[in-house]
Amino acid sequence: MAEIAFLGLGVMGFPMAGHLQRAGHSVTVYNRTAKKARDWAAKHGGTAAETPAAAAEGAEFVFACVGRDEDLRKVTLGEDGCFAAMTSGSVFADHTTVSAAIARELAEEGAARGIGVLDAPISGGQAGAENGALTIMVGGAEEAFARAEPVMQVYAKRVGLMGPAGSGQTTKMVNQICIAGILQGLAEAVNFTLESGLDPEAVFDVIGKGAAQSWQMDNRAGTMAAGEYDFGFAVDWMRKDLGLVLGEAERLGVSLPVTALVDQFYKDVQAMGGGRNDTSSLLRRFRG
Amino acid sequence: MAEIAFLGLGVMGFPMAGHLQRAGHSVTVYNRTAKKARDWAAKHGGTAAETPAAAAEGAEFVFACVGRDEDLRKVTLGEDGCFAAMTSGSVFADHTTVSAAIARELAEEGAARGIGVLDAPISGGQAGAENGALTIMVGGAEEAFARAEPVMQVYAKRVGLMGPAGSGQTTKMVNQICIAGILQGLAEAVNFTLESGLDPEAVFDVIGKGAAQSWQMDNRAGTMAAGEYDFGFAVDWMRKDLGLVLGEAERLGVSLPVTALVDQFYKDVQAMGGGRNDTSSLLRRFRG
Amino acid sequence: MAEIAFLGLGVMGFPMAGHLQRAGHSVTVYNRTAKKARDWAAKHGGTAAETPAAAAEGAEFVFACVGRDEDLRKVTLGEDGCFAAMTSGSVFADHTTVSAAIARELAEEGAARGIGVLDAPISGGQAGAENGALTIMVGGAEEAFARAEPVMQVYAKRVGLMGPAGSGQTTKMVNQICIAGILQGLAEAVNFTLESGLDPEAVFDVIGKGAAQSWQMDNRAGTMAAGEYDFGFAVDWMRKDLGLVLGEAERLGVSLPVTALVDQFYKDVQAMGGGRNDTSSLLRRFRG
Amino acid sequence: MAEIAFLGLGVMGFPMAGHLQRAGHSVTVYNRTAKKARDWAAKHGGTAAETPAAAAEGAEFVFACVGRDEDLRKVTLGEDGCFAAMTSGSVFADHTTVSAAIARELAEEGAARGIGVLDAPISGGQAGAENGALTIMVGGAEEAFARAEPVMQVYAKRVGLMGPAGSGQTTKMVNQICIAGILQGLAEAVNFTLESGLDPEAVFDVIGKGAAQSWQMDNRAGTMAAGEYDFGFAVDWMRKDLGLVLGEAERLGVSLPVTALVDQFYKDVQAMGGGRNDTSSLLRRFRG
Repeated sequence: MAEIAFLGLGVMGFPMAGHLQRAGHSVTVYNRTAKKARDWAAKHGGTAAETPAAAAEGAEFVFACVGRDEDLRKVTLGEDGCFAAMTSGSVFADHTTVSAAIARELAEEGAARGIGVLDAPISGGQAGAENGALTIMVGGAEEAFARAEPVMQVYAKRVGLMGPAGSGQTTKMVNQICIAGILQGLAEAVNFTLESGLDPEAVFDVIGKGAAQSWQMDNRAGTMAAGEYDFGFAVDWMRKDLGLVLGEAERLGVSLPVTALVDQFYKDVQAMGGGRNDTSSLLRRFRG
Repeated sequence: MAEIAFLGLGVMGFPMAGHLQRAGHSVTVYNRTAKKARDWAAKHGGTAAETPAAAAEGAEFVFACVGRDEDLRKVTLGEDGCFAAMTSGSVFADHTTVSAAIARELAEEGAARGIGVLDAPISGGQAGAENGALTIMVGGAEEAFARAEPVMQVYAKRVGLMGPAGSGQTTKMVNQICIAGILQGLAEAVNFTLESGLDPEAVFDVIGKGAAQSWQMDNRAGTMAAGEYDFGFAVDWMRKDLGLVLGEAERLGVSLPVTALVDQFYKDVQAMGGGRNDTSSLLRRFRG
Repeated sequence: MAEIAFLGLGVMGFPMAGHLQRAGHSVTVYNRTAKKARDWAAKHGGTAAETPAAAAEGAEFVFACVGRDEDLRKVTLGEDGCFAAMTSGSVFADHTTVSAAIARELAEEGAARGIGVLDAPISGGQAGAENGALTIMVGGAEEAFARAEPVMQVYAKRVGLMGPAGSGQTTKMVNQICIAGILQGLAEAVNFTLESGLDPEAVFDVIGKGAAQSWQMDNRAGTMAAGEYDFGFAVDWMRKDLGLVLGEAERLGVSLPVTALVDQFYKDVQAMGGGRNDTSSLLRRFRG
Repeated sequence: MAEIAFLGLGVMGFPMAGHLQRAGHSVTVYNRTAKKARDWAAKHGGTAAETPAAAAEGAEFVFACVGRDEDLRKVTLGEDGCFAAMTSGSVFADHTTVSAAIARELAEEGAARGIGVLDAPISGGQAGAENGALTIMVGGAEEAFARAEPVMQVYAKRVGLMGPAGSGQTTKMVNQICIAGILQGLAEAVNFTLESGLDPEAVFDVIGKGAAQSWQMDNRAGTMAAGEYDFGFAVDWMRKDLGLVLGEAERLGVSLPVTALVDQFYKDVQAMGGGRNDTSSLLRRFRG
């Protein structure tokens, strides 16, 4: 069993850190709002620290799950950041969805200090974090991956090493590109279905076994047709991710016409007040 | 067992009519090119007729699977078309993907003659036709459906009555709208994957269990990454279907921004010489 | 001075026929609603006929300005259509915006009868028709053009022979493609201006002399910013024209991604009840 | 006559600074590559300085025309930047196209030091800079504007105060949004024209006086049809500007669907090797 620090106790990090403690690790947590860390310790029995550095003191593994590039930079390289406190041979694994650029930068910073750094964004949503059924897409060196992978398994159903530093983030981007196309198509399809007077349940049941099938159709067509958009990943976060996608595509010189267009459509949803709706709310552009 | 006529022996109709004959029905076939009808009869043991009307003489069920609206009009209402030869109480079921408008028109024509008319487009491709595993989306009256459904089961894995006349066609349109969005997203994703230096097999394996999953990802991401576009439904036919979709959306006043855009992108693929490529060839716009 | 028939007395045809009569020609008019023809004769002093054929009897020139392909087909080749009444050596010039296909078909029909046929769609709007300041884009044979051109000058500021039959229509399509791109860009720009808190009048004044200038900016940016959409060519008619554009582009295998997308956006405007708004109402998609 | 510093002697800044010196001002220039500054002084007779601070020493007006946000930050607030050397009561006017965010930031920085700050991006291209015929869109306080405006007139045909700090930049963004829509529409139109077999010169001549007219049509339709893309503002710079536009639209919550799409299309042009082509090269996506 290992000494572990976990930085960031949002809707994802809170249960993830809990899984680690329950698995027998000795977990010290840090959260920007200290009360959340104390609540976590009260519930799970680990320790709450006041700073990322304090949490990382003596840890073999430091995990992070914060918000954006600047938050990640702060908890790693900022004042009282964890990197200064980590010892050579320890591993830092970041579960935040951030830019591939900062993932590569942290990998270099870590290498200079003897810290193994992994970018390890996740998918599976809040339910996946709570049930320990996340998919983790990892970028970084094989050696660090080999050590961290068994630890992360406690909250994962799937962990894959995708390539060198940044590859976890770019794999997550591929995921979001696919989702953008699927959901805009599905939104147009659901709207067409309703305007045609067809019964959405019957329609998606009959076409849902063939070439038009998608996880989103299986799980969201019905809720979309019912005008319910309260099933997880929010538009505001999707737009953050699509911003990262478009930024990396810029670096690569890769054209993403429909992804860029759907990103604008999500902005329309935000303008309608739907920033906290789930990503299937593209249908609202047609139906209000 | 029933007297059945089958009009149109293309890659779909040929094996479908064969399933009917093998199931014990007495099948008479018609095909525009008469030789194909004689070949069918030689292989399956039914009868070849010279005209749709001749094939339909005395039939309880007439099935059609031709190309476009004008072909369907010809074999039903044209000179020597089947409608004139069909008797009151018989059923006409059309497996062609055509406009909802002609489906409704034929239903009215049939009603005036006491013929039950079903629009019954299919999905599942050539393999589905050969293996008797098609999905059939049916529009029309319940009574006609109740009689034809057991007959169609011989080549179907799934048959659903979607609503009144035209509903089979509009359901098929929903299917194609979904596919257009999925495949453009997947094309952007595969291109991004390759330009990122990621291994497509690893990427789509790890993300293929979650919210980005689709039948197309499961079955086509790998072939797309390999630049192989020889897996069935051709771009030329997809554009025919998207033309029907956009026409019906016009009638309904439904906006389909990404479907319309992807339809133009498929036109680019045609201009690159890819009209016979399968629908996943949207990737060629990025990679040649 | 010539014997002239004019078929179709809408907001364009009515004043155009008036210009011809005032110029000294002997004009006989036909309109689907006969009262309009009688009103015209009462006002301008020419003759009203009951059918296209009756109007065309003995005419050296027959002009038409009706609504759609099917209307044009009716007044030319339909029962009591003008073609049967026209004599060899006469000229038929069509001012309707219709498909290039019907323009080519009528040219062939005319050639078989010794009638010179010109497709001659116009731009310039109702004001242009009233002030005799239309632009006329003509397709057809040089000889017919040479004879009709001086007659059409009476309501034109510009008449150009663009090429063989259909070329007038395809030239008009080029016009509409340009307008679609300009107006969507301008709608996004006006919305951005207003949301930025800038003064639209000042902004379009300062940028209106350079590379962003357009007739639409000069004439519509201000009215758009004021939410006024009552300045002529209606969305319903623009969508008719864009349908012709997309159909001809289909025949040519030409991709029109933004034109197709803007056509869908105009459909959104129709769904908002803006079918009679002018074409600058794309801004309503952003501002209601 | 005034003491003036000019920072940045690119294709725009070099002739602009020359106009100031020729008008009788005493101009000190700075350029990142010092040789360019010495060349300028050799040609125009002013002074070359080694740093922005040195150039700004004692100046009443400091103008800048550099590349991007980070360049502007460096010459103003960086080591040896001009702000530290400027005295209370002096005016800083930036002609670079940069983000509205940095324009607002510099305005605040300036206010704290008693420096009047204007964001004053330009349009009109290299020819406009050389001929003193630029359009200048200015954001900032009226008092600073009143003092700088007569000085800037020496290289301007048009100078407008658009509003508070940042308004010059946002006005320039409006300009670029308009251009993106116009040029994509025009590219589709030129391609359609050529594929239709029409003569582009005749087509754009006849439609160029009406509702489809634009500066781009007047000046670029012919060169586009000839496949010539060597007329000024480069795609690489347009994409920089569209990046600023999309960033500001993000801040404002304004949707720009076609602007975002055209930005991706320009990326395609870059991928074809057209980064140095002028902005009309969107046509290359269709014609190679």
